[in-house]
Amino acid sequence: MHEKKRAVLAFSGGLDTSYCALHLSEDLGYEVHTVTVNTGGFDAHALEEIGDHARRLGASEHVTLDRTEEFYQRCVRFLIFGNVLRGNAYPLSVSAERIFQAEAIAHYAKQIGADAIVHGSTGAGNDQVRFDTVFHILAPGVEVITPIRDQTLSRDEEITWLKSHGVAMDWSKAAYSINRGLWGTSVGGRETLTSSEPLPEDAWPTSVTKSGSEEITLGFECGELKEVNGTRYESSVAAIRTVETLAAPYGVGRGIHVGDTIIGLKGRVGFEAAAPHVIIAAHRLLEKHTLTRQQQLLKEQLAITYGSLVHEAQFLEPAARDIEALLKRSQETANGTVRVLLAPQRFDLLGVRSPNDLMAGRFGAYGESNALWSGDDVRGFSRIYSNQLMMYFSVNGDQNED
Amino acid sequence: MHEKKRAVLAFSGGLDTSYCALHLSEDLGYEVHTVTVNTGGFDAHALEEIGDHARRLGASEHVTLDRTEEFYQRCVRFLIFGNVLRGNAYPLSVSAERIFQAEAIAHYAKQIGADAIVHGSTGAGNDQVRFDTVFHILAPGVEVITPIRDQTLSRDEEITWLKSHGVAMDWSKAAYSINRGLWGTSVGGRETLTSSEPLPEDAWPTSVTKSGSEEITLGFECGELKEVNGTRYESSVAAIRTVETLAAPYGVGRGIHVGDTIIGLKGRVGFEAAAPHVIIAAHRLLEKHTLTRQQQLLKEQLAITYGSLVHEAQFLEPAARDIEALLKRSQETANGTVRVLLAPQRFDLLGVRSPNDLMAGRFGAYGESNALWSGDDVRGFSRIYSNQLMMYFSVNGDQNED
Amino acid sequence: MHEKKRAVLAFSGGLDTSYCALHLSEDLGYEVHTVTVNTGGFDAHALEEIGDHARRLGASEHVTLDRTEEFYQRCVRFLIFGNVLRGNAYPLSVSAERIFQAEAIAHYAKQIGADAIVHGSTGAGNDQVRFDTVFHILAPGVEVITPIRDQTLSRDEEITWLKSHGVAMDWSKAAYSINRGLWGTSVGGRETLTSSEPLPEDAWPTSVTKSGSEEITLGFECGELKEVNGTRYESSVAAIRTVETLAAPYGVGRGIHVGDTIIGLKGRVGFEAAAPHVIIAAHRLLEKHTLTRQQQLLKEQLAITYGSLVHEAQFLEPAARDIEALLKRSQETANGTVRVLLAPQRFDLLGVRSPNDLMAGRFGAYGESNALWSGDDVRGFSRIYSNQLMMYFSVNGDQNED
Amino acid sequence: MHEKKRAVLAFSGGLDTSYCALHLSEDLGYEVHTVTVNTGGFDAHALEEIGDHARRLGASEHVTLDRTEEFYQRCVRFLIFGNVLRGNAYPLSVSAERIFQAEAIAHYAKQIGADAIVHGSTGAGNDQVRFDTVFHILAPGVEVITPIRDQTLSRDEEITWLKSHGVAMDWSKAAYSINRGLWGTSVGGRETLTSSEPLPEDAWPTSVTKSGSEEITLGFECGELKEVNGTRYESSVAAIRTVETLAAPYGVGRGIHVGDTIIGLKGRVGFEAAAPHVIIAAHRLLEKHTLTRQQQLLKEQLAITYGSLVHEAQFLEPAARDIEALLKRSQETANGTVRVLLAPQRFDLLGVRSPNDLMAGRFGAYGESNALWSGDDVRGFSRIYSNQLMMYFSVNGDQNED
Repeated sequence: MHEKKRAVLAFSGGLDTSYCALHLSEDLGYEVHTVTVNTGGFDAHALEEIGDHARRLGASEHVTLDRTEEFYQRCVRFLIFGNVLRGNAYPLSVSAERIFQAEAIAHYAKQIGADAIVHGSTGAGNDQVRFDTVFHILAPGVEVITPIRDQTLSRDEEITWLKSHGVAMDWSKAAYSINRGLWGTSVGGRETLTSSEPLPEDAWPTSVTKSGSEEITLGFECGELKEVNGTRYESSVAAIRTVETLAAPYGVGRGIHVGDTIIGLKGRVGFEAAAPHVIIAAHRLLEKHTLTRQQQLLKEQLAITYGSLVHEAQFLEPAARDIEALLKRSQETANGTVRVLLAPQRFDLLGVRSPNDLMAGRFGAYGESNALWSGDDVRGFSRIYSNQLMMYFSVNGDQNED
Repeated sequence: MHEKKRAVLAFSGGLDTSYCALHLSEDLGYEVHTVTVNTGGFDAHALEEIGDHARRLGASEHVTLDRTEEFYQRCVRFLIFGNVLRGNAYPLSVSAERIFQAEAIAHYAKQIGADAIVHGSTGAGNDQVRFDTVFHILAPGVEVITPIRDQTLSRDEEITWLKSHGVAMDWSKAAYSINRGLWGTSVGGRETLTSSEPLPEDAWPTSVTKSGSEEITLGFECGELKEVNGTRYESSVAAIRTVETLAAPYGVGRGIHVGDTIIGLKGRVGFEAAAPHVIIAAHRLLEKHTLTRQQQLLKEQLAITYGSLVHEAQFLEPAARDIEALLKRSQETANGTVRVLLAPQRFDLLGVRSPNDLMAGRFGAYGESNALWSGDDVRGFSRIYSNQLMMYFSVNGDQNED
Repeated sequence: MHEKKRAVLAFSGGLDTSYCALHLSEDLGYEVHTVTVNTGGFDAHALEEIGDHARRLGASEHVTLDRTEEFYQRCVRFLIFGNVLRGNAYPLSVSAERIFQAEAIAHYAKQIGADAIVHGSTGAGNDQVRFDTVFHILAPGVEVITPIRDQTLSRDEEITWLKSHGVAMDWSKAAYSINRGLWGTSVGGRETLTSSEPLPEDAWPTSVTKSGSEEITLGFECGELKEVNGTRYESSVAAIRTVETLAAPYGVGRGIHVGDTIIGLKGRVGFEAAAPHVIIAAHRLLEKHTLTRQQQLLKEQLAITYGSLVHEAQFLEPAARDIEALLKRSQETANGTVRVLLAPQRFDLLGVRSPNDLMAGRFGAYGESNALWSGDDVRGFSRIYSNQLMMYFSVNGDQNED
Repeated sequence: MHEKKRAVLAFSGGLDTSYCALHLSEDLGYEVHTVTVNTGGFDAHALEEIGDHARRLGASEHVTLDRTEEFYQRCVRFLIFGNVLRGNAYPLSVSAERIFQAEAIAHYAKQIGADAIVHGSTGAGNDQVRFDTVFHILAPGVEVITPIRDQTLSRDEEITWLKSHGVAMDWSKAAYSINRGLWGTSVGGRETLTSSEPLPEDAWPTSVTKSGSEEITLGFECGELKEVNGTRYESSVAAIRTVETLAAPYGVGRGIHVGDTIIGLKGRVGFEAAAPHVIIAAHRLLEKHTLTRQQQLLKEQLAITYGSLVHEAQFLEPAARDIEALLKRSQETANGTVRVLLAPQRFDLLGVRSPNDLMAGRFGAYGESNALWSGDDVRGFSRIYSNQLMMYFSVNGDQNED
């Protein structure tokens, strides 16, 4: 048995979690295990620096857990299958990643027998609820500690306290707070606190550096992106990154999401999501060619629900598993290649080539001798199709007739 | 009582309806009443020419019925309220107008005691079903005649026949078939018969003539567009036209719709819809600020159904009236002004000013002394919010844990 | 200005609210205003006794607010329009009434300038959330006090405390806790705490006293019950009570609801709801005859959402108003009389007579000379109706063929 | 190569298909292959008689295809998973079986290289569309012949014609037309042509022969019925039949369905469906205990869509496969035993025992020391849960306040 109580801290290396790390060991006497979960937003160098920093803050142990591939397999894939864009705009960049980070931390905490799990969320946003709920659900016996939310410290107070404990770093705040991930980057700052102002050009992390236009092709197999510009990728994660590299310098996929938080507030946040926007648009077009009308209608309704579950910290709902089963089955015919034209701050869908294409052209044009149906058939169809309303108007009258 | 049987012909002045006009009087012996219904796509000059042409083809009578305002009041308004874009792209430009044209013709036919109603649709598309069904429903005793569909004539055969009957006009076919209306213009041609090819630049009826960028403001009252750039319009139809005039020269709102026709085929059609795209995007943003999360979710689901009813010739369904009642009620707080930046082939939403804005900023930031809730409240919220899944995982286990 | 702080207490006269009344004045020094809101569950005698009791407990003032008619007009009506039965069983008897009680109390509290609103809910059920949320929403500045939830007192502790303060009444607990209202009565007790046991016969407040069977007729106008057995009622509330009087002695409308509470727990509760069950079943049948297929489908989906809003303390959501607008519009043709056969513990729907009936019989049978459509029309219909799947199977094959 | 053209006739042995059999060989010169597909409605003796009868009518070959188990595996199972009762009443008894009959016949026709497929449907109902569409979809090159629909013969005309061709049988029509199947029996006759009259007692094929009451238990594994009264059945088909044998003599599961046909008419049909009603009610109760609120809500919405697809001849839609994938996944925790009390013309659900039960009782009552949440947590929950509406009312006012 260990003497000190153990705390697992979700650690990003920023000011808030740095404060938490030291506060936990210095003030609360915990043996602190810092954990950084990578769902695609950190590169190797950044992860190394975060580890060094954790140890300097007195962490007994620091671990990095890579969940990028799992995040794709268990979530991003289904966001693509469902063409999920919240409010018709936001690809749920941050929402989805938080759940996988929280889950990995909960599992780790149980594995090392932690007494507490700690996260550095403030009391204003969605992330606190995402962390809280996943911890309550997956590690129900373990205490959840949230120093920043509880103490409502200002940045200055945190910096002062850290300095007084010998941690003197450059905490000068960036003008905009940036959150990078596999499925997009969020950008918040002065303007996003208003309703009426857009982000200025220099607030966007990626500058528009390409001009002119460029055609790329995206190849899908059962709804998964497996080919970009003719190169096949075993891992869709790599294919997504290739699309991001190609499209981001055009500044496509930018936007401002105005959304409802789980705690009932409305908030505004900028996002850059070149790959998600291009991939979802291409995938949706492919589906228009290869899925039936009913399938598309059904998916469209369910994707709204799926997006809400993911966004509102309910990803662990078995209902989400149920929807995923439907989405997966619906992709059997979502095969083919989509042509996309990239240009500064916009992209166009040029067309599709697919072995599962249901376009009428393949079945002979109307009026040809081999047609499977005739104008007479449509005449009959229209009459029967009118039956119920014909009766309805006959019984109830036509209010628009003079 | 009239000696000859009377036929009312939906007349556009094109080759097909010209053939129908003469064929009805010459071959079938009808007294022909041609009717052109304007739902916003024709200007006064074009309407006059159509009338002259009808009379030259031997129509006993030609009438023009203007249904633009009615089309707006009974349909377009609700397409805006519902942010209806079929397949996330197509504003239902043509679909909706056909129904109002058919309805006006059915009412006119009953008014003059017509024996037959005639339309010039081919057997390949949606329009035949739209005309057929509205006529069956609203004029159930009246015969519906469709010469083009029944005789499956080629353009050349029609032209030859017309020439042999003394009608020699320039019927040289435009490279692309264009359909203009209040709510958008459709463009079909060689490429739209394929799955993989985009329309060439010169196929689009409106050239991109503006460069640079330009901010415009759109003012909504209970969801209806009533103000553009500070000028108030009594009629939303006029406001829509102003937006079209401002935005169309930027080439915004272009796209290719890949859709499922009522008769089960998939088809592709280009569309230009600057005003619909800009107005719907602006309206949707305004709703994000002024409607609750539940309201938006509800509307999003219903708008899909409403769009299907309109597109699939079921506009006369009382279910459509039911949805309209909901949509109308939902717009009570959709008041305010939206800033839009127009640029070549794209537009950005800059922000919103609204007396009904629910943005959190108005209620004081988290951590302030006057806050209506605390971090402690969220802690309790998260715990209760986790309850059911906590029990679920406790009973059924966690399959993702090692 | 008043010297003492004022508290408004939602008062039912039971043990919990009696404790609250005395506790507020004795321990907390409030000037206590007790309010009993009648939404149809109390008769005049009971209300008088409650008032006397309140005054004996030291209430400065006791008022009775009757909200029965308002409850019907703003809620029950729509539950009927929507045929709302949660989990296909429970007419939301209690859920709906609580909101109106809370709303009346919030308005009263603001009117008299109360400093606090008090309710006697425990921390286990839905009612605490219903009261809390309505008070927070409608009286945001006023403190909400919940002594029973906060102090987690047992019944015995409450009784002892009351006795020690001179209030000695017979608090002997009924074997089952009963909640009566206009729209049903709930019954909880020993068995409903289990998953496997039904309520015993003597737990049900209404005994089965009628045998044999009896036909009654229910007349609806625009979806509202206005006639029972040929007698017209100006007030639907009176008509509902007449049905209850006729049907309850047959023991119809009993059941056990297994539901999910707002706080995530599953719970079980018995209910007696003769009138709601009979009226909703009759209304639904009438709709099958007078609404189109699309209207019914649409309502069925929305009624689930409406029921959830009402049940889960979100009745004040503007989205509920939006749905109500749809439901109201959908009832235009819901006119006619429904024949119902009552028998011990069951009822049968015999048939319908309606001026808006769309039954095919009225339009002539198939094969008759005046038929509006022919077998040939159906042949064409079937072919077109098959088109998309015919193409789908042609492209993708038939997996069930050997 | 065969000399005569081959026709495959869907053969039930009734008057209509008897006429078709002889008419095909005598008048049209076909080599007739009669096929009877059993989806659970025929016993061995009946099937033998049908075969003898077919041969007497000159069929070159008669085959019986048993699809009962396949019908269960590919359809009935999902109707149970989805608790599908159309219009809250009708278990789709006939609708679903027709599709499997048509599919088996289409496959058989292709296998023997038939030139035509023949069915004996009239032009009035749903079945013609079900047969037509499945044949068009699965055997697109094969002609579909429908003599009864095309010739609109009366029963008397058919009998006279058969007699004149040497077929003299007792064709005296039963007072009511009965259709038996695994998933229910339909009953049509004089009263079902009206809107207002119920079926008389003697119209129902199964008499009420049991009195008193009887408890039975139904055991489900992943949503499938596998145990009745403690006896385990490998085949759910056998388990369903056991429930039917136990419940039908009580007269439970009777009703009259008022529905919308595919061709837009409203129709009324009686049905007896003891097993479907009891099983679905029991299954739904089990789900209330073992599925989350979100899962149930999701399934409830989708089951309406699934029922429509099955009913409206769209069972072959890939969208139906997609929904089935969701339904199957949702049943992982639908395990346990349901207690049902059978009584004359009614049944009660007594309770449930399940290892996956989520009932709160298992987690300790509120107020106990080991509770996972407190009244304080609910207080916080309620406050946050109120946030958005609190803001909404603050901004937009309270219209119900005096």
